[in-house]
Amino acid sequence: MGAVIINFKAYKEGSGKSAVELAKIAEDVAGRCDDYIAVAVTALDLAEIAKEVSIDVYSQHVDPIEFGSHTGRINAEMIKEKGAKGSLVNHSERRLKLADIDFIVSKLKSLELTSIVCTNNVSTTAAAAALNPDYVAVEPPELIGTGVPVSKAEPEVVENSVKAAKSVNSKVKVLCGAGITCHEDYAAALDLGAEGVLLASGIVKAKDRKAALEELVGLR
Amino acid sequence: MGAVIINFKAYKEGSGKSAVELAKIAEDVAGRCDDYIAVAVTALDLAEIAKEVSIDVYSQHVDPIEFGSHTGRINAEMIKEKGAKGSLVNHSERRLKLADIDFIVSKLKSLELTSIVCTNNVSTTAAAAALNPDYVAVEPPELIGTGVPVSKAEPEVVENSVKAAKSVNSKVKVLCGAGITCHEDYAAALDLGAEGVLLASGIVKAKDRKAALEELVGLR
Amino acid sequence: MGAVIINFKAYKEGSGKSAVELAKIAEDVAGRCDDYIAVAVTALDLAEIAKEVSIDVYSQHVDPIEFGSHTGRINAEMIKEKGAKGSLVNHSERRLKLADIDFIVSKLKSLELTSIVCTNNVSTTAAAAALNPDYVAVEPPELIGTGVPVSKAEPEVVENSVKAAKSVNSKVKVLCGAGITCHEDYAAALDLGAEGVLLASGIVKAKDRKAALEELVGLR
Amino acid sequence: MGAVIINFKAYKEGSGKSAVELAKIAEDVAGRCDDYIAVAVTALDLAEIAKEVSIDVYSQHVDPIEFGSHTGRINAEMIKEKGAKGSLVNHSERRLKLADIDFIVSKLKSLELTSIVCTNNVSTTAAAAALNPDYVAVEPPELIGTGVPVSKAEPEVVENSVKAAKSVNSKVKVLCGAGITCHEDYAAALDLGAEGVLLASGIVKAKDRKAALEELVGLR
Repeated sequence: MGAVIINFKAYKEGSGKSAVELAKIAEDVAGRCDDYIAVAVTALDLAEIAKEVSIDVYSQHVDPIEFGSHTGRINAEMIKEKGAKGSLVNHSERRLKLADIDFIVSKLKSLELTSIVCTNNVSTTAAAAALNPDYVAVEPPELIGTGVPVSKAEPEVVENSVKAAKSVNSKVKVLCGAGITCHEDYAAALDLGAEGVLLASGIVKAKDRKAALEELVGLR
Repeated sequence: MGAVIINFKAYKEGSGKSAVELAKIAEDVAGRCDDYIAVAVTALDLAEIAKEVSIDVYSQHVDPIEFGSHTGRINAEMIKEKGAKGSLVNHSERRLKLADIDFIVSKLKSLELTSIVCTNNVSTTAAAAALNPDYVAVEPPELIGTGVPVSKAEPEVVENSVKAAKSVNSKVKVLCGAGITCHEDYAAALDLGAEGVLLASGIVKAKDRKAALEELVGLR
Repeated sequence: MGAVIINFKAYKEGSGKSAVELAKIAEDVAGRCDDYIAVAVTALDLAEIAKEVSIDVYSQHVDPIEFGSHTGRINAEMIKEKGAKGSLVNHSERRLKLADIDFIVSKLKSLELTSIVCTNNVSTTAAAAALNPDYVAVEPPELIGTGVPVSKAEPEVVENSVKAAKSVNSKVKVLCGAGITCHEDYAAALDLGAEGVLLASGIVKAKDRKAALEELVGLR
Repeated sequence: MGAVIINFKAYKEGSGKSAVELAKIAEDVAGRCDDYIAVAVTALDLAEIAKEVSIDVYSQHVDPIEFGSHTGRINAEMIKEKGAKGSLVNHSERRLKLADIDFIVSKLKSLELTSIVCTNNVSTTAAAAALNPDYVAVEPPELIGTGVPVSKAEPEVVENSVKAAKSVNSKVKVLCGAGITCHEDYAAALDLGAEGVLLASGIVKAKDRKAALEELVGLR
């Protein structure tokens, strides 16, 4: 029983109507297990999905800005108004400058939104933990999207990330990601000390997305 | 009678419920004048506003990507599904690399969406025109948000941008922006050969937004 | 008889002592043929190489800045003081925002330095030509470093780039690059209307760099 | 007796011949005091200055790359070959992504070069310390270049940065910067627990640079 955050990315299957469908599948499965299941969706889909489902909905990104003259940007206040629970920050595909991660984490906290800062190895996990986010999610970039699970291919990254993060900040929760697709990978992650997983293609691009998510949380 | 594109930026007054209200004001005024009035809104507000109003709704930005593993990004296909007419591209506050502007303009065209490429001077206007967008909108960055209208402070920039753009691409339409707030500025822009204006704070942050827009298009 | 610009990139063989050696080889070959041979080197090597050789030496990049508080940046004035002839701008591996390309081209011109703006296809070549640089160098990024020469694999890109650039700006010179390694590729490029080539690994990483360059310009 | 790192930035006075002169002044003053005085110079000036003076010379930046196809970039191996002692990393005017800071710090360490990671507040100082650099240099960006010294205007930032950094990594040394121009500011920084200062305009743009540096280290 841990946290399962499904990142819809900019997948076709994670956008528009298909995104709403998947969010409803996640809501349904969440109601039948003890795990915390949440979704991270595009800015275009966020408002509708947050209305349609009762599970937590995260933004995939927010910009490090206040309200103002910032064409093409969105801030933490805006995602809160739309019903977001929080945001991913610094995903491997949307890396940010250190000072901007710090700004966003602080801003999210001040608005009582949840921050999930993504990192790529043990040392950046420790660094991110020092910024006092709610979660750090370590994902070795070379494994993202491969189906080779970090919890089996590089268990020491998960274990050492948990240790490093907690030694810097005892309150931070640690997730892991990259290559996670099935219950065995998820269980291995929890065994290594992670409090959950961040995953994407394994669920979003699965042929039977409901079955894939049920299997992940042990309902099959 | 020209085009009036209202850029909501990341203004508090241009976000969330206030954005929907303003879009409805724009729709109302559009129904009472001969000008083309459209709005450019944040990704978070786009879907709802496109449903609520009959005027054209633009995205303020799209990323230069196809569907795929691009956390925190949105593409042209996604804004089309939400009902967008097109997108601003390369706004002064969201400048893009040349190759990315080209990618986005081509992608928007292939989807029959309208591209409005923003530029900062005469030579970049000519360059943007060569990429074959629907519109180029020239905005000297030093005047943006000042209330000092480009059509009066730097009329030669507008005139020369129109000439430069048309000499490169006879089909492209040219807008101008920066500091435009009232009918006189707008009329001056049209007199200089522009086919419309791009504006933001003068309407979005006006005390009486309806009155400001009515005045702009000559209804007061 | 055309222009041959050798981009040393950040290759180990194009850095430090090996870069000085290669620049001297280029100088030697230049003295024995009718082609214009020049080198584009890292900022770290520029001053020494410009002192050591009589051929033209280009920077691989300059930042779009004036003198001032810009830690870790270099500007056009600085490369001029070091003896540079000019700079590459917007290389595929160092792409720039449209407004920054415009700034740099104008700044280089005002200092009587030569600008070589790199582009990735026909439409961006036309756009770059509108900025009035000395050269535009079109390089389809998918062919860079492959050894598959643009002048044979995509001859229409070269031909159409030349036409598009000249129609926008009759004075601009057009180079092409990507995959060029031998005399046949170079001759094909000139036949297609290019006034020279931009190349890198074919010379810089050749086992016998002198022989490779001699062959390229037809001395073998 | 602490460390004094003089950042030449892209100041006209910190470039070219004037940079060499200033480096020699720094070398001369270093020979007459007990402080550690070093300079951080542009990539264009690095090779020459490292040859001309016996004090430590730092790069203002290195890119997060290995040798390869990276036009317009420089890496840690290259600055080492030129005689650099190390590099500034993530200066406020050249902010980097978290993963890139981590890459550069690790790479510098593997080459036995010294890393000085710049940060903007207490929490980013703690985060940077977790990456295990040699130094962290905290500089509130709003004070940079103002002449209002951080050690007097925001002493708690210096004190708390030292505490935060040491609690994460007991070996890291902490510098502070922003607005430091005279001996009093420098002494105040040391009193607050900093092991030195990072400064720029106060020395580089001083009318009498030798006198300014002598005063800073207490020789006047």
